[in-house]
Amino acid sequence: MQLSIIVIGDELLLGQVTDTNSGEIARHIAPYGWEVNDVQSVGDEAHEIRRAIDRAFELSDVVITTGGLGPTKDDITKTVLRDYFGGELIEDPEVLANVKNVVSSKGFKLNDLTAAQAIVPSSCRVIQNRVGTAPIMWFERDGKVLVAMPGVPFETREMFQSEVFPQLREKFHTDVDIEHAVLMVTDYTESGLAEYIAEWEEAIPPHLHLAYLPKPGLIRLRIDGSHPDKDFITSEVRRAATELNLMLGDAVIATEDLTPAQILLKECGRRGLTLASAESCTGGNIAHELTLIPGSSEVFVGSVVSYSNDVKTGVLGVNPETLAANGAVSLPVVREMAEGVLRVTGARVAVATSGIAGPGGGTEEKPVGTVCIAAAMRTEEGMILCEAETYRFAGTRSRVIESATTRALIKAIKLLRNV
Amino acid sequence: MQLSIIVIGDELLLGQVTDTNSGEIARHIAPYGWEVNDVQSVGDEAHEIRRAIDRAFELSDVVITTGGLGPTKDDITKTVLRDYFGGELIEDPEVLANVKNVVSSKGFKLNDLTAAQAIVPSSCRVIQNRVGTAPIMWFERDGKVLVAMPGVPFETREMFQSEVFPQLREKFHTDVDIEHAVLMVTDYTESGLAEYIAEWEEAIPPHLHLAYLPKPGLIRLRIDGSHPDKDFITSEVRRAATELNLMLGDAVIATEDLTPAQILLKECGRRGLTLASAESCTGGNIAHELTLIPGSSEVFVGSVVSYSNDVKTGVLGVNPETLAANGAVSLPVVREMAEGVLRVTGARVAVATSGIAGPGGGTEEKPVGTVCIAAAMRTEEGMILCEAETYRFAGTRSRVIESATTRALIKAIKLLRNV
Repeated sequence: MQLSIIVIGDELLLGQVTDTNSGEIARHIAPYGWEVNDVQSVGDEAHEIRRAIDRAFELSDVVITTGGLGPTKDDITKTVLRDYFGGELIEDPEVLANVKNVVSSKGFKLNDLTAAQAIVPSSCRVIQNRVGTAPIMWFERDGKVLVAMPGVPFETREMFQSEVFPQLREKFHTDVDIEHAVLMVTDYTESGLAEYIAEWEEAIPPHLHLAYLPKPGLIRLRIDGSHPDKDFITSEVRRAATELNLMLGDAVIATEDLTPAQILLKECGRRGLTLASAESCTGGNIAHELTLIPGSSEVFVGSVVSYSNDVKTGVLGVNPETLAANGAVSLPVVREMAEGVLRVTGARVAVATSGIAGPGGGTEEKPVGTVCIAAAMRTEEGMILCEAETYRFAGTRSRVIESATTRALIKAIKLLRNV
Repeated sequence: MQLSIIVIGDELLLGQVTDTNSGEIARHIAPYGWEVNDVQSVGDEAHEIRRAIDRAFELSDVVITTGGLGPTKDDITKTVLRDYFGGELIEDPEVLANVKNVVSSKGFKLNDLTAAQAIVPSSCRVIQNRVGTAPIMWFERDGKVLVAMPGVPFETREMFQSEVFPQLREKFHTDVDIEHAVLMVTDYTESGLAEYIAEWEEAIPPHLHLAYLPKPGLIRLRIDGSHPDKDFITSEVRRAATELNLMLGDAVIATEDLTPAQILLKECGRRGLTLASAESCTGGNIAHELTLIPGSSEVFVGSVVSYSNDVKTGVLGVNPETLAANGAVSLPVVREMAEGVLRVTGARVAVATSGIAGPGGGTEEKPVGTVCIAAAMRTEEGMILCEAETYRFAGTRSRVIESATTRALIKAIKLLRNV
């Protein structure tokens, strides 16, 4: 079943916000064999929105719009939909009750603009928005459906998953069997990996599809299979994943779609080990990636972001002589940072980074992108195992930070697996 | 001048990556009076790409495609463009030389797949990609232009800004005068702000346009003006910005498009003050936001991410009795965290957070979303000024983290301005 998405808002075309709603919807529907076949971003202009709806209905029986439903003057989607599907704009008492509810649960008072959210086209069926004030509107014409959803990402995610998609599945029942497998691969560039598995990839049967999804420091390999016979396609996808896993060995750090932060938390959790980080150039991003994950507090105890040398010596206990002799971006310093954070936090596992994220600060010997990374572990006997290595990452400041974060997490995963 | 963008790749429609290229392009062209009037996301399917090009050329004289140019089998854009614009696929020796250059500068060896990047349609003019291996291809037909760019965000940004856009401006010379102003507003909800300035907004002349861009904890108000007379529109936009600024007072934390992290770094830098953070529920995100900014090391010395209570007491010196009496999510604890990080890092300004990001851990008294935030400053005389407050943020874990980060930074900005 195919679905088209229209994301509405001048702010999208101005590049002031990035659309994440279409991705959220796509990820949610994929396991059910549904797919997004088109995403259009359009401004808050009536004729642009109408044209986008026409185009979307040409391609799909289901169209989701997000955005343009806010209480402010620049949001016109509701009026456009009334014109498109007919009917009058009426105040819906149930919507008004819901808006009052949502507003008061957030501790705000209802003002006139927000109350106007209860005015909806009579041609739609409203799905009450439990988490925001913009009502969700379901329109039908000639067996096709358009659902208008708010632009606020968490409202769209919550309501699409809990209400809109279940109702769409009920209306458009489909039975395609799809199956997929994911391998998270490190240590290869995209083209290096493609070349290494080229022969195997050539021989893939037509009911399987392989996709490369590179991120800094990591490639997600996704095998998708579709076939009328569920058992057949399940075993085909599994067989392909197993073959790839054997070919790639240690480079595969997970056979499910997990981030390095999730994998490391699982590895530590399974072994009953606590985790900490000591971060210079990654500036707290390792801690941030870990703490984004619900339940991370079971494993992760904290981080010392030692951006200045004073914090490296004063808080982490790095020896000033080590700093003076080697510079902050060096293997001896990053080792002392890892060992220092094990000591001051009492954690059993630690990662540490020190590098030059750029754009300034590079030298001939240590150019921008140079990052020293250590992973350390305190054994039950109190012995410290520590591995450190110098890397060179390409790209902008944020990309160097992202690459170094990923590599540090992978380094700790590999250290734990080799112990 | 209007431009259409087509972003190509199955991974986009599967929601596995988020398109940021269209936003980068839009932000870059806006100051020149160019705008994006359409963005389409399509999969790696020849007929979808062709259809998207047809649609884009209906709307615009300039079409930019990004993605689908990688060295792997699933990338077919180049073949589609050869079919669309005619010609043969030929190996271009200049492109090959450039690919070799780029690959060796990254410290990799050239493999066959990457070398194949040098094969391009004879119907295009190539713009050499200085920062990646996929060549940029410029096609023309009937006075319209399509430029095919890689999907890798930093390659597209770099090459669009330095080469593609300057060449487009040369070809399509335009002279519209546009002007804009931005106010960063806190302390209001979107609808509360809209209601407060409703009368003023009603009276805006047609050559001005006001847009609300809400983010967690912050609203970016953007005034856009366009008019044939440059002096007139410049003074009109300035006048409107000044009026809004006076109406909103303290709630305006900046009159330029800066993030709270950028504003705080500027405020500290201007006063010669160093900055640190002590983070529990924000888990390093405050440090991460600050250190993403080039040059932040001049001001920001570091952070202690005290996720566990042991790190709060052991590293930050929070009194265990304060913890036992009030719980970790409390004003006394967050004050001691802020004061502790001032002491252990030697910084002059600090922010601290402790809260319940969820989804677990909430209680009736302290539900998910409760966050205590402190901002503290050590005066030249060694006196500590500290302001702390409890907030309740709505939404998912990552949204609570984001809101608390923004609010903590704003709290420090306001503390500095009131001293």
